Amino acid sequence: DPNLKVFSLNSNVSLAREIAKVIGVELGKSSVMRFSDGEIQINIEESVRGCNVYVIQSTSSPVNENLMELLIMIDALKRASAKTINIVMPYYGYARQDRKARAREPITAKLVANLLETAGATRVLCLDLHAPQIQGFFDIPIDNLMGVPILSDYFKNKEFNGDIVIVSPDHGGVTRARKMAERLKAPIAIIDKRRPRPNVAEVMNIVGNIEGKIAILIDDIIDTAGTITLAANALVENGAAEVYACCTHAVLSGPAIERIQNSKIKELVVTNSIALPEEKKFDCIINLSVAGLIGEAIIRIHEDQSVSTLFD
Amino acid sequence: DPNLKVFSLNSNVSLAREIAKVIGVELGKSSVMRFSDGEIQINIEESVRGCNVYVIQSTSSPVNENLMELLIMIDALKRASAKTINIVMPYYGYARQDRKARAREPITAKLVANLLETAGATRVLCLDLHAPQIQGFFDIPIDNLMGVPILSDYFKNKEFNGDIVIVSPDHGGVTRARKMAERLKAPIAIIDKRRPRPNVAEVMNIVGNIEGKIAILIDDIIDTAGTITLAANALVENGAAEVYACCTHAVLSGPAIERIQNSKIKELVVTNSIALPEEKKFDCIINLSVAGLIGEAIIRIHEDQSVSTLFD
Ligand SMILES: Nc1ncnc2c1ncn2[C@@H]1O[C@H](COP(=O)(O)O)[C@@H](O)[C@H]1O
Ligand SMILES: Nc1ncnc2c1ncn2[C@@H]1O[C@H](COP(=O)(O)O)[C@@H](O)[C@H]1O
Repeated sequence: DPNLKVFSLNSNVSLAREIAKVIGVELGKSSVMRFSDGEIQINIEESVRGCNVYVIQSTSSPVNENLMELLIMIDALKRASAKTINIVMPYYGYARQDRKARAREPITAKLVANLLETAGATRVLCLDLHAPQIQGFFDIPIDNLMGVPILSDYFKNKEFNGDIVIVSPDHGGVTRARKMAERLKAPIAIIDKRRPRPNVAEVMNIVGNIEGKIAILIDDIIDTAGTITLAANALVENGAAEVYACCTHAVLSGPAIERIQNSKIKELVVTNSIALPEEKKFDCIINLSVAGLIGEAIIRIHEDQSVSTLFD
Repeated sequence: DPNLKVFSLNSNVSLAREIAKVIGVELGKSSVMRFSDGEIQINIEESVRGCNVYVIQSTSSPVNENLMELLIMIDALKRASAKTINIVMPYYGYARQDRKARAREPITAKLVANLLETAGATRVLCLDLHAPQIQGFFDIPIDNLMGVPILSDYFKNKEFNGDIVIVSPDHGGVTRARKMAERLKAPIAIIDKRRPRPNVAEVMNIVGNIEGKIAILIDDIIDTAGTITLAANALVENGAAEVYACCTHAVLSGPAIERIQNSKIKELVVTNSIALPEEKKFDCIINLSVAGLIGEAIIRIHEDQSVSTLFD
C-alpha cells in the first residue's frame, strides 16, 4: 500500500529497518542532521501527502535529543500534509516521572504526551509503558503492546534442568510476573524489601518458594540494575539454584553492566526496544527483537483492526 | 515584592544572578539535576503559589537540553500554582528555522513557541529575535528587547581616531545597522554578495563609502563566523582603515573563534545573552551585559508598565 510509509529517526535505526521488513516496505527517505551549533535539521525527501505515516523513535538516552528529533519530525510531517502521523515509541522516556512524588515536582510523562499532541501526532504505539495510566495522559488513540509473550517464549524454548519460578523484584511488578508465570505454567515469588527500623539497611524477604528452583526475575526497565542484582543475590542466598533476569527496556545506565557481571545473574534477556550499543554487549546478554510484534501492530492499525487481539 | 520570583536554569546562571541583583531579589531555590540515564529531574524548593515567576533560560547550545529543562520547569511551576510564568529567553534557539525554505521542512521556531505555550508559559521576554515575525508565532504576550543601544553605547564611549561607518554584512541586517548608525550619528554601508555566474565564487561588493574609515560590522547572531570574517576581510581589501565587529548573540560554533582570530577583525563585541565559556574567550573579545536591560524590563512587566519605552 503506497499510503503506508515508515520513517526512522536516529535512536534505533536497526529496529526500524527490521520493522519495515516485517511490513514489507522500504524506510521513507529523510535526513536528520545537525547544524554546526547542534540544532536539529530535518528534511523529508519524499512526498507524504495523504499518507499514513509511522515514525519509529524510542526516546531513550540521549532522551532530550531523541524527543526533539521526534517533535520536529512530527512538525515537518504535519506541514507536508501527512494524513495521519503515528508515533511508534517502543521506549517512552520520562515514563517514571508520571506523578508528583514530592511537592512542586513536574509530571514530565504528561508533559511529553502534551508535546507530542501539540506537535501534531495523531496516534501513539508504545510497548510496556512503565505505568499503564500514561495511556490516559493522551487525548489521541494509544496502544500499549506487551513484551511478556516475547520474553516468555524465549524461556519456554530453553531446556531447564529443574523447576522454574517467576520472581517480581518488587510489589509494583507482580502483575507482569503473573502474566509470565501463566504463560510458562510456573509459580511466582515476590521480593519484599523491608526496612526493619529507620536508618537500618533494607532486608530482602522472599515471599514464595524458591528453594532449589531456577528463578527468572522479570522487570519492565533495568536502569542502573541496583534492584535486580540485589534481588538476584538474595535469591541465591535463600536457596535458588540459578537466577535468570529479563526485562523489556534495557536502559542499562551508569554502573549497570558492571553490577550485572558481578552478580549472581546467569543470563540477562532484554528486547531491542532500546538499541544496545556495542559497549553494553557482553557474553550473557540475549537481545530479542520486538520488530515482529510492532510490525504486526502497524499492519493492523493501518487496516483498522484491533491491536489487542495480538496477545491471544 | 515577595510575589516576584526569579529562577535560573542551567544555560546562563551568571546572567541570571546579575539580573536578580538588578531587580533586588535572591534567585529562587530549585534544583535541576540528571538521573543516571540522563533524564532531567527538577524540583522547586520554595513555594511559588500565587507568584509572578520569571525563568531565565537561553536556549543556546546544548539547545535541546536547555529547551527541555525550560519546558519541564514550566510544567513544575504550573502544577505548583504559580500565578504567571514568564519565560525570559535572551537567546531563542531554533529562531533561524522560521520558515519553510524547502519543501517538507519543519518550522521549528513555531514548534518551540507552541511547546512553550503548551507547557504553560503565560508570557515571553526575548532579545533581538532573529526575525521579528517570531513574535506572531505566540498567542501569549511577548516582548522583544533590542541589543543595539548596548552595543552602540560601547562604541560611543570609545575614542576613535577617524570617521566611523556602520556596516551590515548582508541585506537582511540593514535595519539593525541603520539603528546603530542613528545612535552613533554615522553613515552606513552594506556588503552585497553576488555570484556573477553559476559555479563562480561570490564577489563581495560594498555599497557605500568605507575608504579610510573605521568600519563597525553589526549582526544579530555570529555562529560559524563565515559571513562576518569574509565581510571584514573584504572591507580591508577595499580600503577600510580598521574593522570592528559586534553582535548580540555569540553562538560561536565550530570554526568561529579560529576564523575570527585569523581575520582582519580588530575587536569582537558581544553580549552575554549566551554565556561565553572559558575556551571561547580571547584577547580581542568584549563581553557586554544585558542584565540591566532585562532586569529593568522585568520590573516594568511586573509593574504592568510598557517595555517599549525602554528604548526612548
Ligand atoms: N530517569 C529516572 N531514573 C531514575 N529514577 C527516576 C527516573 N525518573 C523518575 N524516577 C524516580 O523513580 C520513581 C518512580 O519509579 P517507580 O516507583 O518505579 O514508578 C520516582 O521516585 C521518580 O522520582
Ligand atoms: N542552527 C542553524 N545553523 C545554521 N543555519 C541554520 C540554522 N537554522 C537554520 N539555518 C538556515 O539558515 C537559513 C535562515 O537564515 P537567515 O536567512 O539568516 O534567516 C535557512 O536556510 C536555514 O536552513
